[in-house]
Amino acid sequence: MNIVIDVGNNYIKIGAFSGGKLQWTKTYSRLHDVLQAVQAEKPVHVFISSVRNQTDFSALETVTQVHFLNKHTRLPIDIDYETPHTLGTDRIAAAVGAATLFPGCNNLFFDLGTCLTHGFINTKAVFEGGSISPGVEMRFKALAHFTEKLPLVKAEKEPPLTGKSTSGSIMSGVLNGIQFEIEGFIEAYQNKYTPINVLLTGGNASLFEKRLKEPIFVIAELNLIGLNRILNYNV
Amino acid sequence: MNIVIDVGNNYIKIGAFSGGKLQWTKTYSRLHDVLQAVQAEKPVHVFISSVRNQTDFSALETVTQVHFLNKHTRLPIDIDYETPHTLGTDRIAAAVGAATLFPGCNNLFFDLGTCLTHGFINTKAVFEGGSISPGVEMRFKALAHFTEKLPLVKAEKEPPLTGKSTSGSIMSGVLNGIQFEIEGFIEAYQNKYTPINVLLTGGNASLFEKRLKEPIFVIAELNLIGLNRILNYNV
Repeated sequence: MNIVIDVGNNYIKIGAFSGGKLQWTKTYSRLHDVLQAVQAEKPVHVFISSVRNQTDFSALETVTQVHFLNKHTRLPIDIDYETPHTLGTDRIAAAVGAATLFPGCNNLFFDLGTCLTHGFINTKAVFEGGSISPGVEMRFKALAHFTEKLPLVKAEKEPPLTGKSTSGSIMSGVLNGIQFEIEGFIEAYQNKYTPINVLLTGGNASLFEKRLKEPIFVIAELNLIGLNRILNYNV
Repeated sequence: MNIVIDVGNNYIKIGAFSGGKLQWTKTYSRLHDVLQAVQAEKPVHVFISSVRNQTDFSALETVTQVHFLNKHTRLPIDIDYETPHTLGTDRIAAAVGAATLFPGCNNLFFDLGTCLTHGFINTKAVFEGGSISPGVEMRFKALAHFTEKLPLVKAEKEPPLTGKSTSGSIMSGVLNGIQFEIEGFIEAYQNKYTPINVLLTGGNASLFEKRLKEPIFVIAELNLIGLNRILNYNV
């Protein structure tokens, strides 16, 4: 069994693969819990992507082979990016995940985590780049943090179009705004590339799954699938 | 001459009205400069809207009559809002401005300042509510503030669709995101109300003026026009 670890800004997600198949996933907020869980599994390889500056996985090195996704890692896709050394490894993982699940397709993928990102990988498995903007919670937090009067609001499933209270207005702006942002990107890509697959991943994907106009695939394990593919490509 | 003052989260905008007409506007970042400019003009009335918790205008009280837009102010529009006491006075000012410029119309107005807000006021001059989400700079600041690795980026006029660097990706996400958010709201309202006027105001309106699909009016003085209308309605 191999374990892949996707360290996001707020959460750490791990996935166990055996015989090329995803066996289970777990999500943690504390690194300590991740280390314990992985140690208990005694995996052959551990492969890690991290968007944080410092995350110490040295405790795992006594029980298994630990590899990191970094600029030296060989990839099963091409990267057409001006600054590949600054490309978040989570975005690389998602791109490889999309190309693994839908090879030979135009894949537009959105990750709804701390940030809302999109990436585009074409039919020839070339990652073309994408976008980064604040995610759901970050937008709520920013409104409270960077203004004097606005409160911190939490997401609800169904925002109003026309908010009739401060929290309703914030709910409308943040949740409709993200929905319209995703739909706008989908439309802009559809005008350039057709046919195109649209994939949604990340902790808040479920908030938008049923509200988007276009058919989409929600794939919670997109990054983990990509990480496992990169691991197998390298070991 | 009367002077109206629109105190936003980051800037303070003042407008001088004489005979019902806007004579000039000035924008300041420091309250001290506002007080000096207003004192020099010796206006008959000063009318103030503020979204900040504390802004001390008592220095003006020796030279003129100072009024504040607050929950006791009589308004020339109706407010259909569940929590009118928490409705930002800037949003009331914009609603009255829209109803003053386009009476008897469905008016959808966007304010691109510290926050991106929209409001809707119908043909019967009833303000129906709207939305609040982070504005351009707030989105850039939030990405740098709430993540470990992302840099602070500044807006450029023409963002790429597919960012090929970290800053290009952030530019795409923030600027396309706001454009798609505005276009999404316009479309959602057009599906419910037709015909509808779309107005754009706020410091960053010019970034989006030429990029939006639908015809819009950019009215930099929307809030000031609304404040002057409310002042005249009360004195």
